[in-house]
Amino acid sequence: MNSKESIKSEPRHYRLSEIARIISGEISGSDDSLITGVSDVEDAVEGDIVFAENDRFLRQAINSNASAIVAPLNTPDTDKAMIRVTSPRRAFISIIELFADTPRNPAGVHPSALISPTARIDIDVSIGPNVVIEDDVVIKSGSVIMANCFIGYGSTINEGCMFYPNVTVYHGIHIGKRVILHSGAVIGADGFGYMFIDDKHRKIPQIGGVTIGDDVEIGCNTTVDRAKTGMTVVGNGTKIDNLVQVGHNCKIGPNCIIVAQTGLAGSVQLGQGVILGGQTGLKDHIQIGDGAVVMAQAGVFGNIPPQSVVSGYPARPHRQRLRQEAAYENLPELLKRVKSLEKQISELQQRIENQQGEA
Amino acid sequence: MNSKESIKSEPRHYRLSEIARIISGEISGSDDSLITGVSDVEDAVEGDIVFAENDRFLRQAINSNASAIVAPLNTPDTDKAMIRVTSPRRAFISIIELFADTPRNPAGVHPSALISPTARIDIDVSIGPNVVIEDDVVIKSGSVIMANCFIGYGSTINEGCMFYPNVTVYHGIHIGKRVILHSGAVIGADGFGYMFIDDKHRKIPQIGGVTIGDDVEIGCNTTVDRAKTGMTVVGNGTKIDNLVQVGHNCKIGPNCIIVAQTGLAGSVQLGQGVILGGQTGLKDHIQIGDGAVVMAQAGVFGNIPPQSVVSGYPARPHRQRLRQEAAYENLPELLKRVKSLEKQISELQQRIENQQGEA
Amino acid sequence: MNSKESIKSEPRHYRLSEIARIISGEISGSDDSLITGVSDVEDAVEGDIVFAENDRFLRQAINSNASAIVAPLNTPDTDKAMIRVTSPRRAFISIIELFADTPRNPAGVHPSALISPTARIDIDVSIGPNVVIEDDVVIKSGSVIMANCFIGYGSTINEGCMFYPNVTVYHGIHIGKRVILHSGAVIGADGFGYMFIDDKHRKIPQIGGVTIGDDVEIGCNTTVDRAKTGMTVVGNGTKIDNLVQVGHNCKIGPNCIIVAQTGLAGSVQLGQGVILGGQTGLKDHIQIGDGAVVMAQAGVFGNIPPQSVVSGYPARPHRQRLRQEAAYENLPELLKRVKSLEKQISELQQRIENQQGEA
Repeated sequence: MNSKESIKSEPRHYRLSEIARIISGEISGSDDSLITGVSDVEDAVEGDIVFAENDRFLRQAINSNASAIVAPLNTPDTDKAMIRVTSPRRAFISIIELFADTPRNPAGVHPSALISPTARIDIDVSIGPNVVIEDDVVIKSGSVIMANCFIGYGSTINEGCMFYPNVTVYHGIHIGKRVILHSGAVIGADGFGYMFIDDKHRKIPQIGGVTIGDDVEIGCNTTVDRAKTGMTVVGNGTKIDNLVQVGHNCKIGPNCIIVAQTGLAGSVQLGQGVILGGQTGLKDHIQIGDGAVVMAQAGVFGNIPPQSVVSGYPARPHRQRLRQEAAYENLPELLKRVKSLEKQISELQQRIENQQGEA
Repeated sequence: MNSKESIKSEPRHYRLSEIARIISGEISGSDDSLITGVSDVEDAVEGDIVFAENDRFLRQAINSNASAIVAPLNTPDTDKAMIRVTSPRRAFISIIELFADTPRNPAGVHPSALISPTARIDIDVSIGPNVVIEDDVVIKSGSVIMANCFIGYGSTINEGCMFYPNVTVYHGIHIGKRVILHSGAVIGADGFGYMFIDDKHRKIPQIGGVTIGDDVEIGCNTTVDRAKTGMTVVGNGTKIDNLVQVGHNCKIGPNCIIVAQTGLAGSVQLGQGVILGGQTGLKDHIQIGDGAVVMAQAGVFGNIPPQSVVSGYPARPHRQRLRQEAAYENLPELLKRVKSLEKQISELQQRIENQQGEA
Repeated sequence: MNSKESIKSEPRHYRLSEIARIISGEISGSDDSLITGVSDVEDAVEGDIVFAENDRFLRQAINSNASAIVAPLNTPDTDKAMIRVTSPRRAFISIIELFADTPRNPAGVHPSALISPTARIDIDVSIGPNVVIEDDVVIKSGSVIMANCFIGYGSTINEGCMFYPNVTVYHGIHIGKRVILHSGAVIGADGFGYMFIDDKHRKIPQIGGVTIGDDVEIGCNTTVDRAKTGMTVVGNGTKIDNLVQVGHNCKIGPNCIIVAQTGLAGSVQLGQGVILGGQTGLKDHIQIGDGAVVMAQAGVFGNIPPQSVVSGYPARPHRQRLRQEAAYENLPELLKRVKSLEKQISELQQRIENQQGEA
């Protein structure tokens, strides 16, 4: 691996004024201290710059050990050095990028990689050690395929992708531009389809494909199955966390967020901007509308309208679920009240009997 | 990888009459159009043949863009070309197989594979690039071990298996015939067993094995742990989806279906034909009877009788759970009714007091 | 792979007296039979020695096919041969170790491994086939890195670690002593962090690291994400099962037990000795106190005090949840009781109306 560029591990540091220039912000005061790191307010040490998007974070930042704060334009002066910017979020990402230690993988093919002669690999692609690339694969400019990845025959990987080690892409898969696949992700394995014939589960061949859009990120050990027929689709800009299961023939819209350990059964459809919390499960063939939010651990067994927020098992509108949960928490108490009512009624009935007997 | 046979990517097509002959069906009408694909009714485009097992699918098929329909014998004529067959399911699998683009892995050992001299590999086995096979491994006729797989010492893989890239089989594992393991599956890692001694969790060595039966399929990134002592067993014909956890010493019967992200704790026993829905969890040492169905996301904490259908947390008979869920949905309303009762009782009591006062 | 030592597969056996000597126990009676295996009572066959920590296990052991029993000092004689010891747990582990068939990986670097010239690998480390080790990695004495593992630049692996095949360690990760990583585990992938800017999810670079303590074991296909800034931490002696997700910036204390398929969102803090049952989910930024137990499938959305036991969704003290569940099981019946009350009240009201009408 001496083909890898040496990476300088010396800690980086920047003057506050340099950072202000890079993020187009204005420094409050004359402080121009040395910034040696960036962090969350809760972990901040001296030398760090932190990010205060709102008043709560600002108060925490002021009380932290941080040396400087990035804050919105209208923020009042504090004891700490401050850079005011139009968009603290955007500025924060730029600052983190300053300190980021991105792996620099050399262009070219590592001698241990095994590449089919019919594969077409652009000249500035980086192919790491022990990578296996089958026939007719296309990999476009600027993509990085790290060690031990496998790319099945006929798959296409567009510009600027980053595949971490040990990624598996089955045959005939289409991957967009700037897609990040983390280690252990498997794209295009067979969907889970059988027919029960003569007392056996007979496999339905899964002859469809997978299309991953541009700017998608897929976490470690996440699995996206190929379609039975047709396509499993992950839309542009969608981000999928670790250990997620995407069943065959799912159609996931653009800009969705799918948190870890969520499972989509076959043929689920997500609109755009859908958010699925961690460990949620979605029944096959259901549709989740644009902008809907499914809260963590929910079990979704039917269609969800756009912009709605659902939770629980089976998933229901979140406010309704909160009322139900509150009632549930009080169930043992409710039981006592009903018992008490039964006793009172019985006494009343007795009294009325007695009255009538007397009358 | 020029040892791999070139794969023709030209689209396949068949005359309707050819397909009818292959599936032993009878064509309705004189249509003999060219069929260029097979699909679900919802995705059908012109040229596709679709499958209509019942009236609902038939109506959808008639309204779809499909060019032909496979249907049961007694189906009436429609505007679309039709092939009638005794078993549409069986026919559908045969048709999909016609269009399937199965990887053809060449027999023989890729030069980059590392195989112990004490391993016994049948002559027509296919071993892909970078595969590592340790001492005393046996791999029988017709099996395919794709790139980057690892097979630990003393493991046996029987006839006709298919291991996709990046599968890990630990040492001393027994794998039956025609077993499919998808990428990232790990068979035979240590069970999760510790004893708490002197304020530390001390590891219990896991010295048992794993036996995988014939015709088993195991999904991507699924883990089947080796037994503490004795065997973890997966029965013949059982199909396991992606990201499933099978704990040490589980005994899974034949022909079970285990959907994605399900977890079996240690020593769980499944009978034959058990179905576990997605994301279910089973407590250790419990028994699930033959033909039982555990619905998605259920948490099973006790034995389940044969043929029963359970759901929820903790799992209960599904009908009972449905009634409970219906009541749960109405809990806030029930609370109001109890409040109203309390008020009415209180008023009644007052009125009776008053009556008695008057009397 | 002829660099691997040949492993004798002959079954091992020991005289009962040998075992007694090894575990410092005393044999009851004059029996000195040959012990050919160790097992759980439920799986025991003739020749096995089993473990009876308490009366229940002792009764099972007496009725099993086992040939000998390991039991506490005060256990009365039975028909079976017995070894009495101070600590049956400790003895049992020692006996299992006698029968364990631990892989013996030869020291040294397999010729197919790709190791950066700037990596520092101690002389008695074992590096398996196709392993890739990037720049500036440090691997200390006695560690074993099996086939197809990847270790990213600048990572440190301390003494006596065991990495099974197909493990991925990203760059700049710190791994303690005697750490076991099972196949498919991924340490140090990017945390799941985005900011929504201009209608897109923009990635927050994850520039922090991961620190894994001493004596940690991490199961197959488990993922531990690197911190956004700062560190994700797994404490000494903590054991993590398969398919677990540990989000960025989590701080897991020492000696915790995390069962399979559990998910920790970002910045969760666990105290020491915390136990998380299977398939539990923990919301981001919450704290779980020392010794707390979260029961299987629970969803934890807030802090949990030390030593408490919680269950359910959302997680509540387990006893409270049991009462609530009992009431929930009776909900349909409660509904009937409320209906009956409503009817009785209505009748009473009518009777009182009538009385008053009569009066």
